[in-house]
Amino acid sequence: MSAPREALAGRRLRLGMVGGGQGGFIGAIHRYAARLDDEYELVAAALSSDAERALESGRALRLDPQRLYTDFRDMASREAARPDGIDVVSIVVPNHLHHAVASAFLEAGIHVMCDKPLTTTLKDGLRLRELAERHDCLFGLTHNYSGYPLVRAARELVEAGELGEIRIVQVEYAQDWLARPIEDSGDRQAAWRTDPALAGPAGCLGDIGSHAAHLAEYVTGMTPSEISADLSSLVAGRRLDDHVQMQLRYANGARGMLWASQVASGEENGLRLRVYGARASLRWQQETPNELWLSVQGEPARRLTRGMRGLPAAAGAASRLPPGHPEGFIEAFAQLYRDFAHDVRAHQAGQAGLAGARRVPGLDAGIRGLQLISAALASQRANAGWVALPR
Amino acid sequence: MSAPREALAGRRLRLGMVGGGQGGFIGAIHRYAARLDDEYELVAAALSSDAERALESGRALRLDPQRLYTDFRDMASREAARPDGIDVVSIVVPNHLHHAVASAFLEAGIHVMCDKPLTTTLKDGLRLRELAERHDCLFGLTHNYSGYPLVRAARELVEAGELGEIRIVQVEYAQDWLARPIEDSGDRQAAWRTDPALAGPAGCLGDIGSHAAHLAEYVTGMTPSEISADLSSLVAGRRLDDHVQMQLRYANGARGMLWASQVASGEENGLRLRVYGARASLRWQQETPNELWLSVQGEPARRLTRGMRGLPAAAGAASRLPPGHPEGFIEAFAQLYRDFAHDVRAHQAGQAGLAGARRVPGLDAGIRGLQLISAALASQRANAGWVALPR
Amino acid sequence: MSAPREALAGRRLRLGMVGGGQGGFIGAIHRYAARLDDEYELVAAALSSDAERALESGRALRLDPQRLYTDFRDMASREAARPDGIDVVSIVVPNHLHHAVASAFLEAGIHVMCDKPLTTTLKDGLRLRELAERHDCLFGLTHNYSGYPLVRAARELVEAGELGEIRIVQVEYAQDWLARPIEDSGDRQAAWRTDPALAGPAGCLGDIGSHAAHLAEYVTGMTPSEISADLSSLVAGRRLDDHVQMQLRYANGARGMLWASQVASGEENGLRLRVYGARASLRWQQETPNELWLSVQGEPARRLTRGMRGLPAAAGAASRLPPGHPEGFIEAFAQLYRDFAHDVRAHQAGQAGLAGARRVPGLDAGIRGLQLISAALASQRANAGWVALPR
Amino acid sequence: MSAPREALAGRRLRLGMVGGGQGGFIGAIHRYAARLDDEYELVAAALSSDAERALESGRALRLDPQRLYTDFRDMASREAARPDGIDVVSIVVPNHLHHAVASAFLEAGIHVMCDKPLTTTLKDGLRLRELAERHDCLFGLTHNYSGYPLVRAARELVEAGELGEIRIVQVEYAQDWLARPIEDSGDRQAAWRTDPALAGPAGCLGDIGSHAAHLAEYVTGMTPSEISADLSSLVAGRRLDDHVQMQLRYANGARGMLWASQVASGEENGLRLRVYGARASLRWQQETPNELWLSVQGEPARRLTRGMRGLPAAAGAASRLPPGHPEGFIEAFAQLYRDFAHDVRAHQAGQAGLAGARRVPGLDAGIRGLQLISAALASQRANAGWVALPR
Repeated sequence: MSAPREALAGRRLRLGMVGGGQGGFIGAIHRYAARLDDEYELVAAALSSDAERALESGRALRLDPQRLYTDFRDMASREAARPDGIDVVSIVVPNHLHHAVASAFLEAGIHVMCDKPLTTTLKDGLRLRELAERHDCLFGLTHNYSGYPLVRAARELVEAGELGEIRIVQVEYAQDWLARPIEDSGDRQAAWRTDPALAGPAGCLGDIGSHAAHLAEYVTGMTPSEISADLSSLVAGRRLDDHVQMQLRYANGARGMLWASQVASGEENGLRLRVYGARASLRWQQETPNELWLSVQGEPARRLTRGMRGLPAAAGAASRLPPGHPEGFIEAFAQLYRDFAHDVRAHQAGQAGLAGARRVPGLDAGIRGLQLISAALASQRANAGWVALPR
Repeated sequence: MSAPREALAGRRLRLGMVGGGQGGFIGAIHRYAARLDDEYELVAAALSSDAERALESGRALRLDPQRLYTDFRDMASREAARPDGIDVVSIVVPNHLHHAVASAFLEAGIHVMCDKPLTTTLKDGLRLRELAERHDCLFGLTHNYSGYPLVRAARELVEAGELGEIRIVQVEYAQDWLARPIEDSGDRQAAWRTDPALAGPAGCLGDIGSHAAHLAEYVTGMTPSEISADLSSLVAGRRLDDHVQMQLRYANGARGMLWASQVASGEENGLRLRVYGARASLRWQQETPNELWLSVQGEPARRLTRGMRGLPAAAGAASRLPPGHPEGFIEAFAQLYRDFAHDVRAHQAGQAGLAGARRVPGLDAGIRGLQLISAALASQRANAGWVALPR
Repeated sequence: MSAPREALAGRRLRLGMVGGGQGGFIGAIHRYAARLDDEYELVAAALSSDAERALESGRALRLDPQRLYTDFRDMASREAARPDGIDVVSIVVPNHLHHAVASAFLEAGIHVMCDKPLTTTLKDGLRLRELAERHDCLFGLTHNYSGYPLVRAARELVEAGELGEIRIVQVEYAQDWLARPIEDSGDRQAAWRTDPALAGPAGCLGDIGSHAAHLAEYVTGMTPSEISADLSSLVAGRRLDDHVQMQLRYANGARGMLWASQVASGEENGLRLRVYGARASLRWQQETPNELWLSVQGEPARRLTRGMRGLPAAAGAASRLPPGHPEGFIEAFAQLYRDFAHDVRAHQAGQAGLAGARRVPGLDAGIRGLQLISAALASQRANAGWVALPR
Repeated sequence: MSAPREALAGRRLRLGMVGGGQGGFIGAIHRYAARLDDEYELVAAALSSDAERALESGRALRLDPQRLYTDFRDMASREAARPDGIDVVSIVVPNHLHHAVASAFLEAGIHVMCDKPLTTTLKDGLRLRELAERHDCLFGLTHNYSGYPLVRAARELVEAGELGEIRIVQVEYAQDWLARPIEDSGDRQAAWRTDPALAGPAGCLGDIGSHAAHLAEYVTGMTPSEISADLSSLVAGRRLDDHVQMQLRYANGARGMLWASQVASGEENGLRLRVYGARASLRWQQETPNELWLSVQGEPARRLTRGMRGLPAAAGAASRLPPGHPEGFIEAFAQLYRDFAHDVRAHQAGQAGLAGARRVPGLDAGIRGLQLISAALASQRANAGWVALPR
């Protein structure tokens, strides 16, 4: 049995967080992820704009009260001024605030790890890219499903031509937690996600459709050239889409379908990808992430397992444990944090290199995501007509 | 352990067959299906228009040489004239001949069991309906997947409201046997299915897309009100579609997607249906037909198995064996033959009743299938624009 | 898509049946099996010793009343005397009658297809072997699970050395239909199977343990050299074992475990085999019989599917349909009948050859099964001590 | 979506570690586990008896060089003397050292978290229990599979009587990493585990058989009253068992089988448990730990998922994420560390209470495990005869 991998060389990175007060979901996930591989130490936070909640949440996290903030701009400037200020900030606020918070930290020269979607408008996304470049900051976007080792294996198998020319992409992300109008009965997670003022113009599309689209893009290396989108609000009275269907066309003639739904009764967190090439196909499901199916025409389907010998190198590098010892959601999320630590250390050592060499999905992926959302909304306005995506 | 069911009362029905000579696929399937429950005896056939092949195929089937024909019209008239003439004819010729063959037998007053799709044009389909009515003949269409006991269970569960209002339909039928241009190297099955002159204007759409559409309709009891279809020929040089994607909209606001492909590397016979309602969802896959998944929001998913106690009555009636004793493709196909025997016996006893009471998908289902094909071809010509289906 | 296979050359064989009246289970299964491939025609039967039930059951099967018997000895002699007498008799009576019925037909020179276990005592089994040899009759024993194409593939893979030297055999057969004492409330199937006078001294052991043991032997080609058996009656008051555990030791040092239970709540017909060799392992489950798993050390597990290219030849020969078109229990059972038809035709053509060349498990397999039962009962008497099996 | 749970109240516990230098497996696992829930801070260690390796391993972990030791006795006494000395020590050395290391820390009054098996002899295990009691120390044993939420759900379902009286226990743990004699070619993990001087008298039995036995005991609440064990070394030349088969008998008449193997080609980490009661059965597999199957006689099998509503309370308490967000091996292992933190804090607050109230498997479980090993070795010497276990 091989040894699990251990820490990278160098000190722990100092991490700050904006958002993520008690009772939230994604902030706690980021903390698990940052902690797992021991590459970060959470030292400062603006956990809530409500002073009391910020303080109490920070105390529960055993943070130094001196470094608990209620204003993110304040936090950005004061942390930038400290000799032991944070190296990286995690942004886990609702979507409509991503742009303002990220801007503040980028302007303070602090690297950013931001939850998806990047922003609520394409214009804001483009601004962030400009800011990051101007201030020479790294920007990671937590398209966390790309942290799964077998998703990385899938990507490398496609790149290596194992599937042949890609013909068909089938991607879907089905949940049922919004199958009833729980936003009307006080569910905080549901409330902001179904409110255009907080979530932006895309509901299910932005929340999980963006994950599905990124997963397909990440594995295939292809972005659709045009799409046709039919968005629906299947729960009566809901103001944002809770159900998304798209047809995809690719420049090489390939075809695809994307389905995302938060009202699909009986589904938990059903993100699933199938990619078919002229020679073989791949199948992966997030709920059973430790296996990846490779089916070559005329041969028995093969069940590749995380950690096994013979997988592409990237899958091994993203894996902690031997096969048969399941890894999960936290581990995959943590992989992005670990990768980002790599990038930040290289940057700090003056080896920042090209953005293209970075390991974590970033501003370019985020902007492509916004372009897709934007095109989908345009298609929807045109009765699901075809809309071209920028090259 | 309960006893397997046995034969219906009455003599075996006399069966004829047109098409189905040696080397074919679907003719042999119909023969297995007709034989399994011991309700039919194959006594006459026009197995091929090639006299020698017809004779040799008939001899291999131990048929009386006196009742081997090379011309289907000849067969229809001579069998109609015999006192012991056939009760039912099975039509298993390529699609473009369905209309002519069925017409001949209907005009001779002989009941017809026809492979799908009904015909290659809607007009021909409507003519057959008229003929069947005029000659008071029964007409079964082998949408064989509706013969699976758990598909019938699914239909009854939907009817009984177990899923709540239907919201989402996801149906797909993926194969890979045409993933390479095997029609160019002498494969007979591939050759006629990819030739517009023999298969009609729809390739994959007619061959398996029609099965997927029927399955969804059969279980949900709903036909789309409009569709948008993107058909492709993903293998270069192919003249008919080998890949179909559709978006579906239903009158009650439900949405759906249909995918059919014969070039999806690694897929064998992947017909899969998922139906989501406001309360629960169903999932069934043809390759593991002895289980049906029912997932109610907030409850553990349930694995219903063929033959188990507590299933809807229709599932029990279509089942031969106790649970855990797998039934398969032949059994489901045979169910349609058994059901048709029921209908024919009732008709012979003067209890024909309304077409609506018949058990086997027939002309109405076939015509709806042709309307869908027709709409899909129209949508395709309009760059996958929306096309309404007749009510 | 390849053509399904069709009938063997030659006339249909004339089949008789003893046992299998209305309401029974296994008789109907044999009839399905005999009918499916169109190699037999049921023409005579002694369906019940009760004259009225025999007549009514025969009428329902559309048999000629002249060939319905109430006494199996009478049937044997009269059928043997007819020019168109039966070629083969199927014996589907309770275990305690196998010996008497089989003897009568062997003495009349009629080939026998008998349900398992062979007899209730080893002595009777040996007598039948002697009789069959003396009268030059073929004898098939319906260890029907060996008719599954992928079981045959498994056997060939082992023979070809794909697994390396066999190390471990894990076989089990779990059901729950006797989990409650239903024999006390009128269930006919349960009643005779739990009654030592009708079932013999072995309950679950004879009924399904014998299937599990045969499956392991059939695939591995190895019979244990010694066993230790712990039999239980887990339902209070039951007179025969309803739960069997065994440890197996093989001459080459391999080890194994056999578990059979009819009181395992929640199990339907869970016959499962795993064989581990020094290089690779195989896994097959009766409830999903169209897939076979081959796992080579350090390689991805492979899912072999019935009908796929590249399988061992024996699997192809036992398969009717292309991959993805599930076959099931009836098809596997029918395979033994088809194989027996092969053997009978060869015998009738004077090519009987050596017993070893026959395709259907027969007297030797049956006798080994009785030796195992006998050894298990001896082990049970010795507090599950080790008992050697004859070489 | 519910919020993931967060840290317990109070400061992080100070953790020490003995063993776990670079290249090892289990030490790194314990570190992940201790870190995940943020309840511990690793501050001191004797990572290796080799001074250089100890130092280098410690540096990689960013430990204070002042608190890196090469002698565990030295570490115990010096840490006990510090005002900020460790609260808990993790023991991750080879089995033969467990007793000596644990003794040193218990005598120094430091709580112990020890890898399994407890010791290599029953006598040593009993001594540790005495020491722990004398010094009022807590002792946790990392039977980590009991940390999985659905294992806890299973235990509660049994306790609540959902299965009815337990009848059958089927437990197995199959791996293949020792399928070849890799101990002869320098594999460190294999070397000590197959060497009686380091691993003790039990090989596979102690290494993973002990996990299987504990899992069965943990879920059923029952310990066998007698066992029969057949141990083998299926790889030629191996000095310890690499394959274990056992039959189990329970006081209530239930029966069971235990299989553990490290030479089962194609198996990764196949720990699987099935428990059958008079009413229903449970099934759980470590490789897909986020689902638990409950099958009630005559009802559809239910797939319970980690995190779902309606699970027993203990499962919810051990769960971090909503359903559909897979947790894995590290999370389950971490659960024991989190539980132990609970116990230690309660102890520090003077609420130690009875050992029985503790959450983590401890000395009693460890001693029962040694009794089982001892009985299995005795059975082996008696040709797999039955050996009673202490009540």
